[in-house]
Amino acid sequence: MIYNLLNRKKVNPTTPIFTGIQQIEEISAQLFVYNESECHENSEFNISEFQEFQLNESCNWLNVHGIHDSKKIKTLCTKLNIHDLAIQDILDVNQRPKFQEFDNYWFFTLKSIIPSGDSSIEQEQLSFILGKNYLVSFQERKADYFDHIRERLRKNIGIVRQRSSDYLLFLLLESILDNYFKTLYEIENKVNKLVLIEIDKDPSPETVNLIEIFKRQIHQVKKTVLPIKEFVIRIEREQFSFVNKKHIKYFYELKDLCLSLIDECEQIEVKLESNTNLFFSVQGHRMNQVMKTLTVVATIFIPLTFIAGIYGMNFTSMPELSWKWGYASIWGLMILIFIGMLMYFKRKKWY
Amino acid sequence: MIYNLLNRKKVNPTTPIFTGIQQIEEISAQLFVYNESECHENSEFNISEFQEFQLNESCNWLNVHGIHDSKKIKTLCTKLNIHDLAIQDILDVNQRPKFQEFDNYWFFTLKSIIPSGDSSIEQEQLSFILGKNYLVSFQERKADYFDHIRERLRKNIGIVRQRSSDYLLFLLLESILDNYFKTLYEIENKVNKLVLIEIDKDPSPETVNLIEIFKRQIHQVKKTVLPIKEFVIRIEREQFSFVNKKHIKYFYELKDLCLSLIDECEQIEVKLESNTNLFFSVQGHRMNQVMKTLTVVATIFIPLTFIAGIYGMNFTSMPELSWKWGYASIWGLMILIFIGMLMYFKRKKWY
Amino acid sequence: MIYNLLNRKKVNPTTPIFTGIQQIEEISAQLFVYNESECHENSEFNISEFQEFQLNESCNWLNVHGIHDSKKIKTLCTKLNIHDLAIQDILDVNQRPKFQEFDNYWFFTLKSIIPSGDSSIEQEQLSFILGKNYLVSFQERKADYFDHIRERLRKNIGIVRQRSSDYLLFLLLESILDNYFKTLYEIENKVNKLVLIEIDKDPSPETVNLIEIFKRQIHQVKKTVLPIKEFVIRIEREQFSFVNKKHIKYFYELKDLCLSLIDECEQIEVKLESNTNLFFSVQGHRMNQVMKTLTVVATIFIPLTFIAGIYGMNFTSMPELSWKWGYASIWGLMILIFIGMLMYFKRKKWY
Amino acid sequence: MIYNLLNRKKVNPTTPIFTGIQQIEEISAQLFVYNESECHENSEFNISEFQEFQLNESCNWLNVHGIHDSKKIKTLCTKLNIHDLAIQDILDVNQRPKFQEFDNYWFFTLKSIIPSGDSSIEQEQLSFILGKNYLVSFQERKADYFDHIRERLRKNIGIVRQRSSDYLLFLLLESILDNYFKTLYEIENKVNKLVLIEIDKDPSPETVNLIEIFKRQIHQVKKTVLPIKEFVIRIEREQFSFVNKKHIKYFYELKDLCLSLIDECEQIEVKLESNTNLFFSVQGHRMNQVMKTLTVVATIFIPLTFIAGIYGMNFTSMPELSWKWGYASIWGLMILIFIGMLMYFKRKKWY
Amino acid sequence: MIYNLLNRKKVNPTTPIFTGIQQIEEISAQLFVYNESECHENSEFNISEFQEFQLNESCNWLNVHGIHDSKKIKTLCTKLNIHDLAIQDILDVNQRPKFQEFDNYWFFTLKSIIPSGDSSIEQEQLSFILGKNYLVSFQERKADYFDHIRERLRKNIGIVRQRSSDYLLFLLLESILDNYFKTLYEIENKVNKLVLIEIDKDPSPETVNLIEIFKRQIHQVKKTVLPIKEFVIRIEREQFSFVNKKHIKYFYELKDLCLSLIDECEQIEVKLESNTNLFFSVQGHRMNQVMKTLTVVATIFIPLTFIAGIYGMNFTSMPELSWKWGYASIWGLMILIFIGMLMYFKRKKWY
Repeated sequence: MIYNLLNRKKVNPTTPIFTGIQQIEEISAQLFVYNESECHENSEFNISEFQEFQLNESCNWLNVHGIHDSKKIKTLCTKLNIHDLAIQDILDVNQRPKFQEFDNYWFFTLKSIIPSGDSSIEQEQLSFILGKNYLVSFQERKADYFDHIRERLRKNIGIVRQRSSDYLLFLLLESILDNYFKTLYEIENKVNKLVLIEIDKDPSPETVNLIEIFKRQIHQVKKTVLPIKEFVIRIEREQFSFVNKKHIKYFYELKDLCLSLIDECEQIEVKLESNTNLFFSVQGHRMNQVMKTLTVVATIFIPLTFIAGIYGMNFTSMPELSWKWGYASIWGLMILIFIGMLMYFKRKKWY
Repeated sequence: MIYNLLNRKKVNPTTPIFTGIQQIEEISAQLFVYNESECHENSEFNISEFQEFQLNESCNWLNVHGIHDSKKIKTLCTKLNIHDLAIQDILDVNQRPKFQEFDNYWFFTLKSIIPSGDSSIEQEQLSFILGKNYLVSFQERKADYFDHIRERLRKNIGIVRQRSSDYLLFLLLESILDNYFKTLYEIENKVNKLVLIEIDKDPSPETVNLIEIFKRQIHQVKKTVLPIKEFVIRIEREQFSFVNKKHIKYFYELKDLCLSLIDECEQIEVKLESNTNLFFSVQGHRMNQVMKTLTVVATIFIPLTFIAGIYGMNFTSMPELSWKWGYASIWGLMILIFIGMLMYFKRKKWY
Repeated sequence: MIYNLLNRKKVNPTTPIFTGIQQIEEISAQLFVYNESECHENSEFNISEFQEFQLNESCNWLNVHGIHDSKKIKTLCTKLNIHDLAIQDILDVNQRPKFQEFDNYWFFTLKSIIPSGDSSIEQEQLSFILGKNYLVSFQERKADYFDHIRERLRKNIGIVRQRSSDYLLFLLLESILDNYFKTLYEIENKVNKLVLIEIDKDPSPETVNLIEIFKRQIHQVKKTVLPIKEFVIRIEREQFSFVNKKHIKYFYELKDLCLSLIDECEQIEVKLESNTNLFFSVQGHRMNQVMKTLTVVATIFIPLTFIAGIYGMNFTSMPELSWKWGYASIWGLMILIFIGMLMYFKRKKWY
Repeated sequence: MIYNLLNRKKVNPTTPIFTGIQQIEEISAQLFVYNESECHENSEFNISEFQEFQLNESCNWLNVHGIHDSKKIKTLCTKLNIHDLAIQDILDVNQRPKFQEFDNYWFFTLKSIIPSGDSSIEQEQLSFILGKNYLVSFQERKADYFDHIRERLRKNIGIVRQRSSDYLLFLLLESILDNYFKTLYEIENKVNKLVLIEIDKDPSPETVNLIEIFKRQIHQVKKTVLPIKEFVIRIEREQFSFVNKKHIKYFYELKDLCLSLIDECEQIEVKLESNTNLFFSVQGHRMNQVMKTLTVVATIFIPLTFIAGIYGMNFTSMPELSWKWGYASIWGLMILIFIGMLMYFKRKKWY
Repeated sequence: MIYNLLNRKKVNPTTPIFTGIQQIEEISAQLFVYNESECHENSEFNISEFQEFQLNESCNWLNVHGIHDSKKIKTLCTKLNIHDLAIQDILDVNQRPKFQEFDNYWFFTLKSIIPSGDSSIEQEQLSFILGKNYLVSFQERKADYFDHIRERLRKNIGIVRQRSSDYLLFLLLESILDNYFKTLYEIENKVNKLVLIEIDKDPSPETVNLIEIFKRQIHQVKKTVLPIKEFVIRIEREQFSFVNKKHIKYFYELKDLCLSLIDECEQIEVKLESNTNLFFSVQGHRMNQVMKTLTVVATIFIPLTFIAGIYGMNFTSMPELSWKWGYASIWGLMILIFIGMLMYFKRKKWY
């Protein structure tokens, strides 16, 4: 779904409503309560029954799939003491990513990119609430790109269970950026194919159309990565209380991922710009080829046809017609003209 | 009315004059005096009779429609203790939006955009004076986009009656930005249609003309949104005495709306740029098609016509003419040439 | 006179010389000595006889027309205690506008634009010296755009006689910027005509030439407005001793005028860029039209001519020639081909 | 290998893996221990046996070729007390150059450019660890561009043995930048040839393709030089403890080299942009030439052929046919038309 | 000599070498020792015999022509106590202009531009060492653009002998910038001719080639002026001990000269960009003209030739052939078609 204005609905800050398109049937949630020694998972978690986090020396991760039921989301958020404006921001998927610092938690939203069918890039809004020892994440649909992180929590792979919730946030963000890389990789693949196959064959406007679609996709990817970069840079620069200082180096890595993404985008853009130039040069070249063919054939045969026309005239006294070598010398003249023309065009390098 | 210089009149700061075109017949005004418990409305308010605001624990909103009668406006503003330069700015609709802080009030003007007919964007200047507990707004015409806010005041919907006049200002600004979104949405719709219909059919210069008109409209929208963004950012950054600190988050939302608008504009611009490229590629493609048709037909038949011309010559001794299979073998030769040419063009992928 | 290097002469800072082209016959000057109650005007003022300003509770405005006589100018400036470099700057019309603060006065130069004939913009250098209660202005020619200000001084219109010389400076600058607006208005008018008339008729390169001339004019206008804007912004930002704090709001208005001018320039530039695109699309369209006409006619008649050529051959045994319906059926065949071709081109939407 | 996403592998910060393509068979290393009086070289150094540097009044340079064996690299780095994230960065060749300051050492990576075959630029990641009196460098392959520095160490050429390890780092960086210059020199050479040879002969799209390949290469070179410049500027600006103040002037030279490289890139870009313009003008010119040839020949002979056609008609009563001078006057007419047409085209400067 | 990489040689900071092309046969030098009352000139000065400057109340200016003999230059510089890196910079002509502040002197290099033959701009590196009361200047060749300054010193013209060596530096720099103006003036002259003559006549790609050569020259001029501007701005901003405060206003003038140069460059660039647009529009227009001619002639005569072809057929029974008015009515038909076609094209405004 390319972000458009079609879905914008009138929003009243006091009565939050969902502004997107329902993506899954029912809202579901998982709750992970973990520390270094144990990890409790509740996958059939019903968000209506949520009371409060168990924060005694454990980390909590509440992941919500589906935000189309604004009432349920509002009820949950109220229990979590989240500000009304933030609730509206969770539900309003047609807005720019944003970051806001509240007293007891951080709130921020970002766009994840889902590699999908032909010419469109699916976009999903993700919202996060990071508090002391807990993290709440909201997704529009039940995407599977956090699965390997759940696996790490369950099986205690890596260091995630030894760290606080900000490290979990780092893992989630890294996973989201990874999806960006996958999307870019797919686009780059298509662009490379475009260069190798389409351009060489036929300069159809369809190629320009494809190039322009890719340009818009890259533009869209860049637009959604930039706020993530700004957010990560802000974490690196300001010393926030919710981020362990030891973990800042990890967010620094995220910044580098974002910069690589933007570099990659620019490189693809340069390629696409090249392709546009190439297209128009191929189109002009084709035209030249076509016109040269016409010109060579026409300028050779039109004068010859004229000569033949001359001797097709019916004047009573045309002495050449009755000459003995008349016919043969006309043939000779015509062959001479023919060869002369060919040599002329050869010297002009027209074929 | 695209902003142009035609209406610029010589302005003398000491004798303010109206520089626009009269949009409505008579100046009218509404006064709302409201607090949490009650709301008095005076819709038949005559601005000549204005004395002063009743500021005892109530908020005042004076909304003026029509600014073409500079005398009346000046009289009103003088009663409100507004500086001469600000009065001139209210009346001079041919200027950039501006923001000025005075001792007892803020003064600022901005442009509202009214979605209208075919290729033009109507623009209206709105001026606001925000003081302690009062707000005065000036409109060029009797536009209806503040109606839902009046309704809220009357029926005590939402929290507007519990808040001070800066919250009312937020609502008005949000309503203005909403109009921008509607305009952009209309333009985007037209641009999308352009892509789907016009380009595929006929590369007429009219399409380029349309694209360029849209580009200019988007340019105009961006130009008028930028000052609103700057104004809102300034409210957010500086801690102004007229804005309740609790309300700053609302103005922060406005900034986000402005940024979304600008994002949207850029996205449409990218699309329009794509369309220009596409147009020229389609035009070149058409040309190629036309020329290929001509070339194929001409290069096949011109040599054949030449051959026919040869045997239309009237030389007395043309032995081929009396050969038994002469006519048939010429037909054979011509068919051979015809097929050969077709195959040649087929291999060149010319049709 | 488009600013060029042809007039640059070797300048020695110690012996200032005039680097422009003499515009008027003789240097003349007017001296206004005014305060709230009276205004003495000396229009036949001879600058050789200048002694010093009468600054006792009066403002002095000395306006000099013509700067081609470097000796006279130098003598005057020396009496006014003006630095050598500033004198050279007054006389050197081939330089960028500049602003310099000296101990007892400000010195600055700027370019005024004079709306003139066809494709050129006349430019005039104006220099100002603003001291405590006096203002000296130097003009290259006897332009009349300060006349309404002289009128105000004489007849005590407005507040100019109640204010100090910095307010007079504001009026002069406003008057200069007004000339810019007039020039832009003329250019915009021409550009609008260009769009309406020329483009629709004939894609002659003359149109592109005009577009490019307008582009260069706009570029020139922007180049000369920018230093004025910088100068005015500097007055607004730094608290200069020569500008009354009450008057800063007026200079703030000037900044707004400059910004409007630049906005206007950009808008015209966008229009001109549109016109370039439009031109090339019209040119391509014309080409397509011409080629389609040729192709339709040629591809219809070339095969028909071939058929006619066939039966113009003189073979002894061409059975079709003596068939009873031979001639008629050839006509039939040719008409069939003709209609078929027409339908083919109709379907391809070629006419 | 143009940097692409194909080689990106999922990286887990705790278990570093190599993300590139193995370039050499086995990891090898050289250790130089040197001071002003002596220099011990160990070229058969086995990095598994590394214990610790001998830092008593000597400088150590450990240069590692090959980083594909992540285990060995990790073991070595652990002995050197290098942070896990830095180890991962050494092994991850698909990332942007980076610079990080740790307590006891600096870590940074950069890209070296290896001039190679036709249309690709080989890129190699180099990582450096600069500590007090020691320098560790990691290379992907066994490139020979540090050989002259080894020679200097061995034979005590120049001042390298009298200086600390930061001077050695300067020499290595200078050597890397030299490779950039060589690469740019090769590209520039090819671009100059392109201008002289290809464009003049034939406007084939292959030329545009080459131009676009060069543009992408220059883009790539700039992208990899910029981080080096930033790194060197940071050394110059901040007073780092690992860089002797006397040596800062040397790093200042490096900054100048980087700026020259970027200047050079921009100059080549300007040339390439020129070539694109030139290409399209040549293509258009060719087209004009071809069309003029066709038009001259066709417009001369088509009317002549028509005249011949007229007198090839078989009407019974065509009086001209039996006129005495009929045939001759037709020839005269045709020659007149021919000469008239030639003169017309001559005057139009068509050939 | 357009700056290229061909001459880059491996440079070792400890053994400086000359990297340029020898421009004159032998190194020569002049020494001026001057104060207000006297001026000693030694034009046959041998730099091997240089001992030290006589700084007792005199200024010294040592001007060296030719830097190809690195040994001599090094010996001289060592006597002057110049740092090794600066010596290398004097000798390395293939680098960006630079400025460095040392304890007892300033060192800086810049590029001077020498107006020369057709399509190239000769560039010369100048190096300066400014110390307390002395100035050393190094030139690659024996250019004559400092002659008028020598004359001033000899004949005590102006104020140069009353001032310290920084004023002499100002004069030298002004003289160098003057050369830039001359070069720009020559380029502008050529560009203006290009506009007036070439474009109007013939859209040959040679014109585009010229435009692109000028673009590159302007780019080169801008590239070399920018460092001079930066250097002068730095003098103005920082209060350097080697520049008399009274003289800062002179360097301020230099900054203005640089800005004028850059303005001028941009103006020429705008013109060149216009010319490119104009070229392509003229080329397209030519094409249109050519094609219209072809189309008019072909579409008129091809149908006529067809008709003639019809009645050239040899069918036995073609009743029209023996009609009394057959021939005449065919002529009538053909003239009707001819006139009809002409009128059609007239209405379409094709000629």
